[in-house]
Amino acid sequence: MATPPTEIFWQEKTSAVDTHLHALRRVLVDTTTAYQHMRIVETATFGRALILDGKLQSAAADEALYHEPLVHLPAIAHGGPRRVLILGGGEGATAREALAWRTVEEVVMVDIDGEVVEACREHLPTMHQGAFEDPRLRLVVGDALAFLASTEARWDLVVSDLSEPVASGPSFRLFTKEHFEDVRRVLAPGGVFVLQAGSLTHYEIHLHARLFHTVGAVFPHVHSFASHVPSFLTPWGFLMARDEPFETRPDPAAIDALLAERIRRPLAMIDGPTALSLLQTPGHVRKALDRHTEIFTMQAPPSIPRDGS
Amino acid sequence: MATPPTEIFWQEKTSAVDTHLHALRRVLVDTTTAYQHMRIVETATFGRALILDGKLQSAAADEALYHEPLVHLPAIAHGGPRRVLILGGGEGATAREALAWRTVEEVVMVDIDGEVVEACREHLPTMHQGAFEDPRLRLVVGDALAFLASTEARWDLVVSDLSEPVASGPSFRLFTKEHFEDVRRVLAPGGVFVLQAGSLTHYEIHLHARLFHTVGAVFPHVHSFASHVPSFLTPWGFLMARDEPFETRPDPAAIDALLAERIRRPLAMIDGPTALSLLQTPGHVRKALDRHTEIFTMQAPPSIPRDGS
Amino acid sequence: MATPPTEIFWQEKTSAVDTHLHALRRVLVDTTTAYQHMRIVETATFGRALILDGKLQSAAADEALYHEPLVHLPAIAHGGPRRVLILGGGEGATAREALAWRTVEEVVMVDIDGEVVEACREHLPTMHQGAFEDPRLRLVVGDALAFLASTEARWDLVVSDLSEPVASGPSFRLFTKEHFEDVRRVLAPGGVFVLQAGSLTHYEIHLHARLFHTVGAVFPHVHSFASHVPSFLTPWGFLMARDEPFETRPDPAAIDALLAERIRRPLAMIDGPTALSLLQTPGHVRKALDRHTEIFTMQAPPSIPRDGS
Amino acid sequence: MATPPTEIFWQEKTSAVDTHLHALRRVLVDTTTAYQHMRIVETATFGRALILDGKLQSAAADEALYHEPLVHLPAIAHGGPRRVLILGGGEGATAREALAWRTVEEVVMVDIDGEVVEACREHLPTMHQGAFEDPRLRLVVGDALAFLASTEARWDLVVSDLSEPVASGPSFRLFTKEHFEDVRRVLAPGGVFVLQAGSLTHYEIHLHARLFHTVGAVFPHVHSFASHVPSFLTPWGFLMARDEPFETRPDPAAIDALLAERIRRPLAMIDGPTALSLLQTPGHVRKALDRHTEIFTMQAPPSIPRDGS
Repeated sequence: MATPPTEIFWQEKTSAVDTHLHALRRVLVDTTTAYQHMRIVETATFGRALILDGKLQSAAADEALYHEPLVHLPAIAHGGPRRVLILGGGEGATAREALAWRTVEEVVMVDIDGEVVEACREHLPTMHQGAFEDPRLRLVVGDALAFLASTEARWDLVVSDLSEPVASGPSFRLFTKEHFEDVRRVLAPGGVFVLQAGSLTHYEIHLHARLFHTVGAVFPHVHSFASHVPSFLTPWGFLMARDEPFETRPDPAAIDALLAERIRRPLAMIDGPTALSLLQTPGHVRKALDRHTEIFTMQAPPSIPRDGS
Repeated sequence: MATPPTEIFWQEKTSAVDTHLHALRRVLVDTTTAYQHMRIVETATFGRALILDGKLQSAAADEALYHEPLVHLPAIAHGGPRRVLILGGGEGATAREALAWRTVEEVVMVDIDGEVVEACREHLPTMHQGAFEDPRLRLVVGDALAFLASTEARWDLVVSDLSEPVASGPSFRLFTKEHFEDVRRVLAPGGVFVLQAGSLTHYEIHLHARLFHTVGAVFPHVHSFASHVPSFLTPWGFLMARDEPFETRPDPAAIDALLAERIRRPLAMIDGPTALSLLQTPGHVRKALDRHTEIFTMQAPPSIPRDGS
Repeated sequence: MATPPTEIFWQEKTSAVDTHLHALRRVLVDTTTAYQHMRIVETATFGRALILDGKLQSAAADEALYHEPLVHLPAIAHGGPRRVLILGGGEGATAREALAWRTVEEVVMVDIDGEVVEACREHLPTMHQGAFEDPRLRLVVGDALAFLASTEARWDLVVSDLSEPVASGPSFRLFTKEHFEDVRRVLAPGGVFVLQAGSLTHYEIHLHARLFHTVGAVFPHVHSFASHVPSFLTPWGFLMARDEPFETRPDPAAIDALLAERIRRPLAMIDGPTALSLLQTPGHVRKALDRHTEIFTMQAPPSIPRDGS
Repeated sequence: MATPPTEIFWQEKTSAVDTHLHALRRVLVDTTTAYQHMRIVETATFGRALILDGKLQSAAADEALYHEPLVHLPAIAHGGPRRVLILGGGEGATAREALAWRTVEEVVMVDIDGEVVEACREHLPTMHQGAFEDPRLRLVVGDALAFLASTEARWDLVVSDLSEPVASGPSFRLFTKEHFEDVRRVLAPGGVFVLQAGSLTHYEIHLHARLFHTVGAVFPHVHSFASHVPSFLTPWGFLMARDEPFETRPDPAAIDALLAERIRRPLAMIDGPTALSLLQTPGHVRKALDRHTEIFTMQAPPSIPRDGS
């Protein structure tokens, strides 16, 4: 008898015309929440994965290549964050990385979609690794905009780990100048803001570039970096911003020393040399940043098509 | 918010090189039994479907177009079957059609794979429609070859509703001359044997043709007929055989009268005109029957590749 | 070295959500004409095929199963057609079948898209088999509506062999009551009109049914028949209509005698028994005809989505 | 009328179970050469692409992200290469990058498959950009192993730009220790060897790692670097090796000065910061290098399955 064949696929539109067929072992969740369509599947190649509105958010096999740069590059820039605010981050993996810092005293994670958080908690244990049980974590199920408007606290690190700004999806308002102004208002002195900021593939990099300029319209300093997450099928961009310039040629040994002192466990990817590597924005990306400069506002927000329909 | 998108597909190999992607609403069962790989899925287009070893067995939306010809054409030829033996038929839909005959006193269904039968019973209620609870039905989980070797009973109708003779699958031995001899031995006088007998697409019709000659090596009379089951994507062939010739130009009105008297409920497809239609083997099929005449034996059984791997 | 692999596919949408991937050996033509998108490809499974606006029109391996019923069922009903008018029919295969009748003196084929006809002439020799060189054939590149409005001739057979009524495609106006009235006007006494009339799959049969009633609003007698063409992946419906009733229980031997006398060459599919078979509209189709009765007019024409986009 | 739809796809197996469907605008070449299956297609997303034995070699839209690191990182390490030997490199893009160095006096390109080179020359002008006409280029159609065995010349740069070591394909022997020894023998003092060295996706990185150790068994110093080429769908690894250690923390400004002096035209990607970035092997890659240490020999060469399986 043959091995159970892989005949069930999740099809991701990777552009207006191309598609990728991910072989599935299991469909664990397939439901429409109050905010979006959610799937949790077990892919044959990348393990369990969260999919929101037809887009892969992260997959077990390589999510560290996404979550580690997202959290640790800005945290290293800060040096010793104590209070961290996460917008989105339903899988709990962003919280997990923030909580790895010994300096961190409080993490607040604001996710609008409690159903997504609950499903991740149940089905993606390798992603949160118990982060939801850490007494330093506070989960707020609610609207990030409302939270920012009402919080009195100030944060060393604000991590925007949101699903892509899909047209009429739950997150597109959080990719606008007005929102970035709200974020700047709640940063503590020396605080850093970081956001996942889209694919760097040539036909999509305009979103990343325009976000670069939108964040740059609010913060004196903004830096573009990227990580290669194979399950995304495309290099992925991030932006970090603050009032002071970023040190882009740090001494790798000094970073290694900082991490050794302040991180509780070995990381999968980030260390001194890796940080040095990621801090150099490659030439073709810098050229693209120069080409697409129009900023996003509440009047003219980003709106990428809901491909999967 | 968009309608839940169809992004999960079951891929069926329809030839060595072509594939069909069936959009899925749900995967209800996906497991390897002791005999084969079984899936029960809810397709977007054809409703719930049973898939064995990568091949669609039947789908809710049009399974009647398969099960009605399979049972009622030989039953009409017989006139009033009392005792019916079903080989395979896990969905319970073949039993359902047999039990629709008022004349039927006993149906024995022998299926080797109890896990398939149980899963169909639970997940495919529109297929069995309670057949498993009918006191006239006896389910035997076991090997059809062994059952035939040991049964003392004689049957008015033997219905072979088996999965395709996939290499090293559970059914290929049941498509051989030796097996058909066993079947003939257990037929009552006037009894009819019918089997599902493969696709009629030009590149697969050789299997149907060779089965025609294999059955014809055992029975004095054999007749090829077909039904168009859209979820199969291809016209599907059947063979019926007995010791006496078949009446292939019956009076449709007489058939309608017979069915009105002996069938408990309206049928979806079969009536007098439909039976007359199906009884005429089309010209291109008759030509194909003449082209592929080698018979299947236990030494040289049919063995179609397990495509889905 | 491996055999040249089949890695290039033509994807056909078979429903709003399902797709079929046909392995290709070659793409011979891929262009946008003045009226539609045209492809001629060599499929691995069905040989060369014509595709218009994303829909397969016919494929070498089994086009006879489409063109023979389309032409010969109405021609048999007529008995000895002399003048045949074909609307559409770009491949030349419909003309080929009409020209096979010894009684036929003139075939006029009106196709709006000269580019399609030219490409078929060049790339699909097994389909036209020289029909375009037959002195009895006259090709008119132009609008069927205009031709019908201006023709003084009367026709024994009018064959509507058009691409499906795709929204904003070239043919949807030719599936309306007004057009069918034009057709009736140009029929000679005893003349028969036949049209290809859509898929019989459960989720598409409403188009066939509504065409049945639309034709029936114009002609006293209309008959639904079908052929299963494997490359279409679905049973395909036709409608024929005339002023007198159709004989639906003809003697197969009489048909065979008629064909032997009047057809120049052996046919692949149609003969007496096959004609008898096709003339019986199956039960489930008759039920569907009763369910969808709204007719199509120029104000409310059929308009199936252009899926392939 | 709709825009010409994208319904024709090239399907690439990206793993044993996953596939990617690239929408095609045109198939320009589809043939089996004496050595491999070759396709040149125009993809909708990445422009024209060369495909050998079912694997994408490079695509117009982002081939610079592959060819620039391949050539310029080792050339920068060398400082001023005069004589360059390219093994493979059929598209002519590797030659193009080598010829961009003012210091380069001779480039010899040895490709076993003259049909591939000819087809690229005709159909991929944006890739070679006239490199084949440069008087400094000499094209040798022949076996790289034989060329290395017979050449008396010594080379500043040897660039192995071969298709992947597909089982029974033309290149797998060129990924063995014995071959790397041949290469070392023909290097001039200070010479650098570089090779494309496979995907860095977690389930394929073992090939890259084992090549790292195989090269390291021959050369005193070997360095792993990577580039994410979106059309490859995965980060891609390279290895460079020489007798002296590599400077992995160069001053970006010094590199920019070197390039300004020695390169004839602006590059798309590589400059000082980008070189600094690529020279830092990321943490997760270094860990993988430690995990897979078995080397490849002629007795035990690499052998990835044809088609990604």
